[in-house]
Amino acid sequence: MGMREELSLDELRAHIDTCDSELVSLLAKRRLLTEQVGKIKQQNGAPLHAPEREAELIAARRQQAQDKGVNPELVEDILRRMMREAYENQQSELACAAPELSPIVIVGGEGAMGQLFAKQFKRSGYDVKVLDKAQQSNALEILKDAKLVLVSVPINTLEEVVSSLPELRPDCILADITSVKQKPLNSLLQKHQGPVIGLHPMFGPDISHWVKQTVVACEGRMPEQCQGLLDQLKIWGCYIAPMEAKKHDQAMQIIQVMRHLTTFVYGQFLARQCHTLEELRGCSSPIYQLELMMVGRLFAQSPELYADIMLAQFEDVEGLLASYQDTFAQTLTSLKNQDKSELIKGFDMAKTYFSDSAHSFLAQSRGILNKANDAKVLG
Amino acid sequence: MGMREELSLDELRAHIDTCDSELVSLLAKRRLLTEQVGKIKQQNGAPLHAPEREAELIAARRQQAQDKGVNPELVEDILRRMMREAYENQQSELACAAPELSPIVIVGGEGAMGQLFAKQFKRSGYDVKVLDKAQQSNALEILKDAKLVLVSVPINTLEEVVSSLPELRPDCILADITSVKQKPLNSLLQKHQGPVIGLHPMFGPDISHWVKQTVVACEGRMPEQCQGLLDQLKIWGCYIAPMEAKKHDQAMQIIQVMRHLTTFVYGQFLARQCHTLEELRGCSSPIYQLELMMVGRLFAQSPELYADIMLAQFEDVEGLLASYQDTFAQTLTSLKNQDKSELIKGFDMAKTYFSDSAHSFLAQSRGILNKANDAKVLG
Repeated sequence: MGMREELSLDELRAHIDTCDSELVSLLAKRRLLTEQVGKIKQQNGAPLHAPEREAELIAARRQQAQDKGVNPELVEDILRRMMREAYENQQSELACAAPELSPIVIVGGEGAMGQLFAKQFKRSGYDVKVLDKAQQSNALEILKDAKLVLVSVPINTLEEVVSSLPELRPDCILADITSVKQKPLNSLLQKHQGPVIGLHPMFGPDISHWVKQTVVACEGRMPEQCQGLLDQLKIWGCYIAPMEAKKHDQAMQIIQVMRHLTTFVYGQFLARQCHTLEELRGCSSPIYQLELMMVGRLFAQSPELYADIMLAQFEDVEGLLASYQDTFAQTLTSLKNQDKSELIKGFDMAKTYFSDSAHSFLAQSRGILNKANDAKVLG
Repeated sequence: MGMREELSLDELRAHIDTCDSELVSLLAKRRLLTEQVGKIKQQNGAPLHAPEREAELIAARRQQAQDKGVNPELVEDILRRMMREAYENQQSELACAAPELSPIVIVGGEGAMGQLFAKQFKRSGYDVKVLDKAQQSNALEILKDAKLVLVSVPINTLEEVVSSLPELRPDCILADITSVKQKPLNSLLQKHQGPVIGLHPMFGPDISHWVKQTVVACEGRMPEQCQGLLDQLKIWGCYIAPMEAKKHDQAMQIIQVMRHLTTFVYGQFLARQCHTLEELRGCSSPIYQLELMMVGRLFAQSPELYADIMLAQFEDVEGLLASYQDTFAQTLTSLKNQDKSELIKGFDMAKTYFSDSAHSFLAQSRGILNKANDAKVLG
C-alpha cells in the first residue's frame, strides 16, 4: 500500500507540474497581449497606469475566485505581480506628452539618476543630450537650443554647476532632481529668468518601472510652462505630489536624515555587542529579521561617502538630534523611576500621532512579512 | 483611427481577461491537487515542507520560463505565492509524529498562542485539553494523565502558574513557549523531575501556516524523551534552532527589547515635530514609508500593556540602553567636531559586523519594496 501511495503522490506532483507549466504558457501569452496594449497607449498618448481598469480587473477576478472556491487574496497578489511585469515590459516604448520639450539636456547625465531620466525621455521619443564632465568643453553647443535642462548632480556640487551654466533660452525650463529643494531651487531661480521647477523623485536609480512612483514637485516660476514636464511624468505612471520647498526640506530632515542617523547609531551599537549577526538572526522573528535588514542595508554604502553626507546635513538637523536625545533620556528616566504613568503618557502621544495608521501599518507589515516568508529558503 | 485603436485596446483587454480567467481556473485545479497531496502526507507522516521538491519544481518552471521568453523571477514569485496558499490549505489535516504525547494539556490554552498550539495539535490528531482560568477548579483531573504539558501564559505569571501545578506523571514532558528562556526553564526544572524543554516560537498567533517558521529550542532535561515533540514541529514544517537559554535571552534583549525601546523613542520624537504623518508620508520614498510603518505599528498596542512589558524588561537591558546612549552621544560629538575619520571608523566597525549581509540585505529589501509597490493603491 505504501507503494501505491508513493506512486499516487508522484502522479499528483506530475499533475501539479502540468498546471504550473500551463501557468508559464499563460504568462507568455499575457506578455504578448500587454506589450500590444503598451504600444497602443504609446500611440494614443495614454498614461501607462490606468487605475480604474486595474481596479475593475482585480474586482472581476476576485469575484470569479470566490465563485470557484479560490482565495481572492491569492488571485489579487498574483494579478498585482503580473501587472508589475506588464509595466516593466511596457517601458521600452512610451508615449510623448510634450514634444515641445525637445531638445532636452541632462546635466550630470552620466550619473545613475541622470542615466535613468535620459533613458526614459528617449523611450518617449525626446531628443536627449547629456552634459557631464566629459562633454564640458562642448557645453555651449549642447545647451544652445535646449527647451528643458534637467540638473542631476550631487547636492554639494549643484550651486557651482548651475551658476556656471551659460544663459539659456528664455522659454527653456530649468529643473533639478536634488533630494533637498530650498537651496537648489534658489540657485535655479537666480540663474534663469524663465520657467523653473524643483523635482524630488521618491525613488532610486534601480526601479524597474515608473508606475506608481512618487515625484515631489516644488513650484519655482511660470508653473503653467512646466506643466508639460509634469504631464510626461504622469504618462509614465508617476504620482505628482506638489509641495512647498521649505515644508519638503523639513519633512525630509525628520524622516530621512534622522532615520539614517539613528540607524547608523543602532548599527554601531549592535557591532559592539558580543553576539554575531548569525546568532541574532537565528533567534529573530520575521519582524526583527526585517528590522535587522533595514539597519544592515545602510552599511552596504561607502563609509567615505556616507560620512560626507552626514556631515553636510548635520547643521540642519542639530536641533532634531538634540530633541531625539532628550526624548531618549526622558524615556530612560521614566524607566529608571518605574514611572508607568509617564511611559503611558509618551505612548499615548505617539499613538495619537499615528492614530488609525498604526493598525493599517500593522496589517500592511503582516502582508509584507508573509511575502518575505514566501521567499525564505532554508538550508 | 482613434476609434479603431480604442476598439483594439478593448479587444486586447478582453483577451487579457480571458487569460486571467484561465489563471483562476488553474488555481482552482491546483488547489484540489495540493489538498490531495496534503492528505497523502498526513497518511504517510511526511513533513509538509519538502524543500527538495520545492527547489526542483521552481528550477523546472524557471527553465521553461526562460525558453518561452518569460521572466523567471516572475514565475518564481508566483510559484512561491501559490505554495504559501497550498501550505495554508494543507493545515486542516496534519500528520501525527508522536502519538505517545496524547493527552496533551495546554496551560493557558485560551490565550492567542495557546489556542494556536491547541488547534495545531488537534489537526494532527492529538487528544488536547485546555487548562485556563475557567478550568482551574478541574486542574487535577485535567492534568492527571497528561503526557505533554505545554505552558503558554504571560511571562510575568509563568513562575506562579508553574509552581502551582500538581505533580505530573514522571514520563510527562513539561514545556513552555515563553519569549524568555532562562528563568522559565528553571521554573519548569524545579517543578518537574521528568523531561523538560523550553521553546520560543519565532512567530505570533496570526500566522496562516507553520511552514518555514522558526522555533528556538532550549534543552532542559532528558532531551531524547522530548524528541517526539520536536519531530511534530518538523512535520508541521517548522525549523528548529537549538540554542543555549542564556545566549538566547541575551540575543533577544539586543534585538527585540532594544529595538522596541528605540522605536518607542522614535515614535515619540516624530509626534513632537510639527509635521503631520500625512505630510511625512507624502514625501517618503518606499524605504521610508516602510520605516514609518515599522515605527507606527508599535503604537497599535495597548499603552498599559506596553508600559508593563518595558518596565519588566528594564532591569535586564539597563546596560544595553546605556551603551546605546553612549554610541549616540559619541556620534553626535563626531558630527559637532566635523570629525570625518571618527565617523568612518564607526561606519567601518558596523560594516565589518554586517559584512556580506549588508549587500544581501540591500537586495532583499529591494525585493520587499517592489512587492510593497505592487500592492500600492493610489487615490
